[in-house]
Amino acid sequence: MDSLETLGQPGAGTESQTEARMLLSCDRDELAAGVAAVQRAVSSRTTLPILSGVLIETTPEGLRLVGTDLELSVETFIPVSFSVQAAMVLPARYLGEIVRRLPEREVKVAFDGARRVATICSGKAVYDINSMEPAEFPLFPQVEGNVWWKIPGKDLAQSVRQTAFAAATDENRPFLTGVLVAWDGGEVKLVATDTFRLALRKVQADGDGKADESPAVRQMIVPARAFAEVGRIVQGEGDEVEIYASPNQVAFKCRKTTIVSRLIDGQFPNYERVIPRGWKSRMVVDRVRLMDAVERVAVLGKDEFGTVRLGFGGDTVTISANAPEVGTAFEEVGVAGNEGEKGETALRSRYLLDVLRAVDDEELALEATGPVSPVVLKHAGAEAGDYLYLIMPVTVNA
Amino acid sequence: MDSLETLGQPGAGTESQTEARMLLSCDRDELAAGVAAVQRAVSSRTTLPILSGVLIETTPEGLRLVGTDLELSVETFIPVSFSVQAAMVLPARYLGEIVRRLPEREVKVAFDGARRVATICSGKAVYDINSMEPAEFPLFPQVEGNVWWKIPGKDLAQSVRQTAFAAATDENRPFLTGVLVAWDGGEVKLVATDTFRLALRKVQADGDGKADESPAVRQMIVPARAFAEVGRIVQGEGDEVEIYASPNQVAFKCRKTTIVSRLIDGQFPNYERVIPRGWKSRMVVDRVRLMDAVERVAVLGKDEFGTVRLGFGGDTVTISANAPEVGTAFEEVGVAGNEGEKGETALRSRYLLDVLRAVDDEELALEATGPVSPVVLKHAGAEAGDYLYLIMPVTVNA
Repeated sequence: MDSLETLGQPGAGTESQTEARMLLSCDRDELAAGVAAVQRAVSSRTTLPILSGVLIETTPEGLRLVGTDLELSVETFIPVSFSVQAAMVLPARYLGEIVRRLPEREVKVAFDGARRVATICSGKAVYDINSMEPAEFPLFPQVEGNVWWKIPGKDLAQSVRQTAFAAATDENRPFLTGVLVAWDGGEVKLVATDTFRLALRKVQADGDGKADESPAVRQMIVPARAFAEVGRIVQGEGDEVEIYASPNQVAFKCRKTTIVSRLIDGQFPNYERVIPRGWKSRMVVDRVRLMDAVERVAVLGKDEFGTVRLGFGGDTVTISANAPEVGTAFEEVGVAGNEGEKGETALRSRYLLDVLRAVDDEELALEATGPVSPVVLKHAGAEAGDYLYLIMPVTVNA
Repeated sequence: MDSLETLGQPGAGTESQTEARMLLSCDRDELAAGVAAVQRAVSSRTTLPILSGVLIETTPEGLRLVGTDLELSVETFIPVSFSVQAAMVLPARYLGEIVRRLPEREVKVAFDGARRVATICSGKAVYDINSMEPAEFPLFPQVEGNVWWKIPGKDLAQSVRQTAFAAATDENRPFLTGVLVAWDGGEVKLVATDTFRLALRKVQADGDGKADESPAVRQMIVPARAFAEVGRIVQGEGDEVEIYASPNQVAFKCRKTTIVSRLIDGQFPNYERVIPRGWKSRMVVDRVRLMDAVERVAVLGKDEFGTVRLGFGGDTVTISANAPEVGTAFEEVGVAGNEGEKGETALRSRYLLDVLRAVDDEELALEATGPVSPVVLKHAGAEAGDYLYLIMPVTVNA
């Protein structure tokens, strides 16, 4: 193979020279989407230099891209035509920045194995990028096991979006930084809690031919950060995502993309005992109106959580706050249905806003049991049992 | 007047009670726009508490709003109907957050002078906000002098946008943190430089009846930050902005809004001597193509300024960079017109991108005089003399 030395020099990016050294050709937008997906697993703060790179490899199934931080690994394939087999590891940060901005749809890549330099060409743009050693790149984790659960990508993305935000962010109790995924008959439950609030989503999993087979794992704790990335990657996918699990890892497989996350070790708390069995007052509210009012009142909310008071049981739900020195806020939002007693509860507005932004219901049911009991939010309609969000009240000085 | 105590309590926000204590009524969107405009002069890091507030005052010309950090002062009037005269100073941060989110267009404000509490009502929302003492609020600066210059708001905004970004941000030489505004016959020049680059914009000021009158000040240095705020406030205004100046202050008057900035003391450098008299190579390039290519190449640009090399004089302008360890980048952008010699210059890409983003020309003329001389960008067409942007080359190790 000729030297690629001249490719980075003025005048070298001409059609004929690029053609002569061409190794592979692919589409910019598919390459950019692939790099963006695997980049989600690449940490910018890694101590192992090889993990800052994306593995790019020509295979019979297409161009294979892999990114990993050893906890989360993403592998995807994009269509490619190639003449010579090759593997390279290019720095994710630079690769992502360059690829999505290339001037033309057609991207050609040449690789000089001796100098370990990849030359990326598109239109009149020529980038020589140094590769790391592909042999040093970690093997992609293999998860053995039955198909455990199948769900359309957009449903999985929604379920994750409605739960993962409620997980703890501090690492004191690692098992709270994950989402519990529990198999229970024909149903899968996703649960996350940081002990101040809890989100529970149920997804029907029967109707899938393989669901009756004994699952390898009956419950697992998936790291919330990794799960959120899974949600983002499969978001637009109507196609089913296949989920496999081993005692230590879980794999999500969707079309050409496989995402593997390690699982969190530990016992998830017995969340069911904090869910109230009934309620003293229940009302149905317009989600957007409630959200707008809470956002405004929270401006005068107490402490860094913007604590506000909710009043139930009248013709309206009232939201009020009191910021020492600044002033007080008071709002009312009309309720569609209203049952039970009057009452008041102090809540951290951030926890309330988190759920109001995460769901897309037009109306939500609010259930309260008293000033020291949690407030529960549910779907207002027939599918009420599918989702539950619970906020612990603030009991001191609120 | 009855106590307003009950207004912040549940059930108090009803139509009849609000009406009874109503002091003034205005439109939410006009109030929000007014607050947003005067808030631009309010510093969040002030040692004088009164300066964190917005003065709100009923006057025969409308509701008067004022914000100031003593360097920049903004006053505006919005339509209002009121029954009792009053003045209050409300915390800008809270006011801005609350007002723009109010549920209904109609906003009513009651003021309890004894307790110094303003009650802002809109729909079912009721906010009691503590006022500071209006008598402590600084007087709005009065600038005496002739109308010095008149220009449509959108032209002023464009002129500021094309120059102010080139001013220095560090305070070592205060006169470089401003934009020179110089009156020269029927023309006004705006000039800003941080010594690494320079932007010069000329605006025709003749045709204005008052322009022949001897201006109070022949040149002044307007702080770039304040000038940028002026540009943002008058942005959408086709109406003319009147500019008055005294030796220490400048006032911009546009419809209902007056903006006063202090001037910077000092001698602006003799910028004309750095502007090359001719060029060795000149070419006309598509602005967006050049911008896209520079953005990509800058990914591999040297140092924190993303230094890149520009090559002139062929059928294309070439842009290249070399990031140690990572790799090299090379791009070409076709040129429409090309005269003169071949040459190469190293530039800080940030300085080049700043101007490519600030102007909206389809094509720009690039002029170079050699590797150690500045590169000059101008309009490509007949109005070439109206704008000049100059970038000093990087001469060491580039």
